[in-house]
Amino acid sequence: MARKASLSGFPEWLPQERLVELHVLDTLRRTFELHGFSSIETRAVETIGQLLRKGEIDKEVYGLHRLQAEEDPGAPDQDKLALHFDLTVPFARYVVENAGYLAFPFRRYQIQKVWRGERPQEGRAREFTQADIDVVGDGELPFRYDVELALVIAEALSALPIPDFRIRVNNRKLAEGFYRGIGLTDTAGVLRSIDKLEKVGPDKVAELLQEELGATPEQAKAALQLAGIRTEDTSFVAQVRALGVEDELLEAGLAELEQVIGEAARRVPGKVIADLSIARGLDYYTGTVYETVLVGHEHLGSICSGGRYDALAAKGNRKFPGVGLSIGVTRLVMRILGQELATASRQVPTAVLVTLANDESWSEAQDVATELRSRGISAEVAAKAEKFGKQIKYADRRGIPFVWFTTEGADGSLAHEVKDIRSGEQVPADPRAWTPPAEDLLPQVTATGRI
Amino acid sequence: MARKASLSGFPEWLPQERLVELHVLDTLRRTFELHGFSSIETRAVETIGQLLRKGEIDKEVYGLHRLQAEEDPGAPDQDKLALHFDLTVPFARYVVENAGYLAFPFRRYQIQKVWRGERPQEGRAREFTQADIDVVGDGELPFRYDVELALVIAEALSALPIPDFRIRVNNRKLAEGFYRGIGLTDTAGVLRSIDKLEKVGPDKVAELLQEELGATPEQAKAALQLAGIRTEDTSFVAQVRALGVEDELLEAGLAELEQVIGEAARRVPGKVIADLSIARGLDYYTGTVYETVLVGHEHLGSICSGGRYDALAAKGNRKFPGVGLSIGVTRLVMRILGQELATASRQVPTAVLVTLANDESWSEAQDVATELRSRGISAEVAAKAEKFGKQIKYADRRGIPFVWFTTEGADGSLAHEVKDIRSGEQVPADPRAWTPPAEDLLPQVTATGRI
Repeated sequence: MARKASLSGFPEWLPQERLVELHVLDTLRRTFELHGFSSIETRAVETIGQLLRKGEIDKEVYGLHRLQAEEDPGAPDQDKLALHFDLTVPFARYVVENAGYLAFPFRRYQIQKVWRGERPQEGRAREFTQADIDVVGDGELPFRYDVELALVIAEALSALPIPDFRIRVNNRKLAEGFYRGIGLTDTAGVLRSIDKLEKVGPDKVAELLQEELGATPEQAKAALQLAGIRTEDTSFVAQVRALGVEDELLEAGLAELEQVIGEAARRVPGKVIADLSIARGLDYYTGTVYETVLVGHEHLGSICSGGRYDALAAKGNRKFPGVGLSIGVTRLVMRILGQELATASRQVPTAVLVTLANDESWSEAQDVATELRSRGISAEVAAKAEKFGKQIKYADRRGIPFVWFTTEGADGSLAHEVKDIRSGEQVPADPRAWTPPAEDLLPQVTATGRI
Repeated sequence: MARKASLSGFPEWLPQERLVELHVLDTLRRTFELHGFSSIETRAVETIGQLLRKGEIDKEVYGLHRLQAEEDPGAPDQDKLALHFDLTVPFARYVVENAGYLAFPFRRYQIQKVWRGERPQEGRAREFTQADIDVVGDGELPFRYDVELALVIAEALSALPIPDFRIRVNNRKLAEGFYRGIGLTDTAGVLRSIDKLEKVGPDKVAELLQEELGATPEQAKAALQLAGIRTEDTSFVAQVRALGVEDELLEAGLAELEQVIGEAARRVPGKVIADLSIARGLDYYTGTVYETVLVGHEHLGSICSGGRYDALAAKGNRKFPGVGLSIGVTRLVMRILGQELATASRQVPTAVLVTLANDESWSEAQDVATELRSRGISAEVAAKAEKFGKQIKYADRRGIPFVWFTTEGADGSLAHEVKDIRSGEQVPADPRAWTPPAEDLLPQVTATGRI
């Protein structure tokens, strides 16, 4: 991260940094697949009509035009193409288009780049990778998936070389029911005010609620009391009840959130918390809402967000409810690299450099490398029979741990030795049997002490 | 492939098809890493100035504009952004920008989507994935890499569920030297004519050479004789020499091509052939040129092409020669899926569905699934305690091979059984010890009889 991206907002990694990113991507993929999520990818482009389906686009979208095309002013704007700005809108389209071919409930993961033309800043790029998991049902979707997804994400994040995290969960029904119960019916308005809590503080929010939404001081106080509740277990239920508000929707929301927090407290204690101050997202999700912060890195913003939609997608009268979460992979990787939270043990996949005693032995050296590769050992052959010192330096510069030497005896027989260039130890070795220690087989990505 | 892409030229796969694509991508990655190639990715966009660096863009490029941006007519066109149309131009820029951080010769692989606004047709999409490997040197790059890359690609393609292939190799020095030796100095012009050989036949090409390039009948005949040479071993050298042309550059080219074909004939017999009719690419590469066809699918065009550049990139006086190849992954996957050359053994990663005897046992069932996952077995838990028949049907529809049953004894102890739903066999099992047969652990992608 000494380097600056040559194009602001479009980060690129050096090979050793890329190994850290690959480790993150592979870990997420593995966790998702262990939980039965299927991989899909959607095209990078959507029609503008599709992107507008959910109303105004509040994201900065990149439109596409063919440089060499004769302008076709007749094509309606909504048929023009633009780069997708998230993976949810494309997934919803994919579900509708392929509904006849998918088995519902359909569990999918999707790891792809998305683009937003926003002003680049800390933790915010114009091109970045998201890793999404969603479960989508046909007509109905059991609430249990809301519980399961929090667990899967907690497991996925726990497997990454990142600081401790908290998945903060709230529920739209709980919030809306509570506000309704105290007589505030402009849920969206209340959420907008509550969302400012961390920035402007409770006094200012109380003022906003009264001035902008006509709340009484008692209503404002109650709304703030609700937003003040944050528990690692299901004790939030009693705390909400103690506020004395009665509403059917509130009860439904409490029961749902209790299921999520209860199961998570048992299985991944401390990772998933009820946080009734969470307001962002509650205006478009219809039930559970998740967001996630890294402990000690709260300023970075949410690194994983999502929630439940009653209708993630719809096809005529047919509704597809869904619940899902999206991990901001690039945001995480930028933080890991920027603060050296984890590093790769070497620059290259290569575990062994097969050296050349003379220029004619290249083909023989390839035979050795082929033997090693057949057992999963990454091997390169030197391109030229330079002095051994130079060949060893080639390995050393790249962090390749082992170099291989083959010498031909007077009788034409070959003798093999392998040297660990860190310890200097050199031993006889058989290309058909030798293997490096497990930790040297592949580049290892490990957390540094800085986490 | 019963389905048509909803946006022409932008293919998307169903989950079971995506498993085939993933298998191709994973196989390529594994092969490249076993040979010591480092992964990098570059941003999807380049400035138009960058894309134009090599002269006119003959590809249909997608330019980008921000939908909500006030137009900034002051920005020079060359600073505007466009989607990359290959991975070579971005890699050249990456090498120049990061030269101070890379160890040369630098071996990298890069698997990413690229975009071209061309008219979609068989084997040609607007968004498609390329898998590139290149080795780039600082100042110089031993010729041996030209040999090695042919071998790596042959190994990578051999590992894919595709029909047999031929990597056809030619050499710019050989061709240019030969034409010069017979008195034809407009190499580009001759190559343009020779390139039409397959389409219009030798008589027509002889005519073109005489009419458009002023060749004598003898010169045209010699050029066609060269183009007629195609050998699986190094016998092409003698065949060229028999044509009696003498030229220094021709000799250099013969020696280079002999190295490639000689080593390949020994290591991967029949896969890499000298084909002196190859003309495409010879006008911009400076030495070796590769292209690859699938046997019986020649109409699909080249599925893997590349060559040697004396200066893949340059930074002032500093030159970075390179040699590389690019596999058309999407073209291959479209063919595999379109002709069902390979299939995935199931739709989902899940190997075991853990069923529910009653709704309260969900958490216990998660414990079982967690045990299985800890040993790398993908497992899902049923979301509802429906009738067992329904739960088994859930597994059956997705091709999940095993379902797990847990029953609680009168004394509270748990009894576990696992059923193979294909054979119907049901046996007692311990969640901490049971594993499925290796072939059921992950979805298997296997070639069908159609290859």
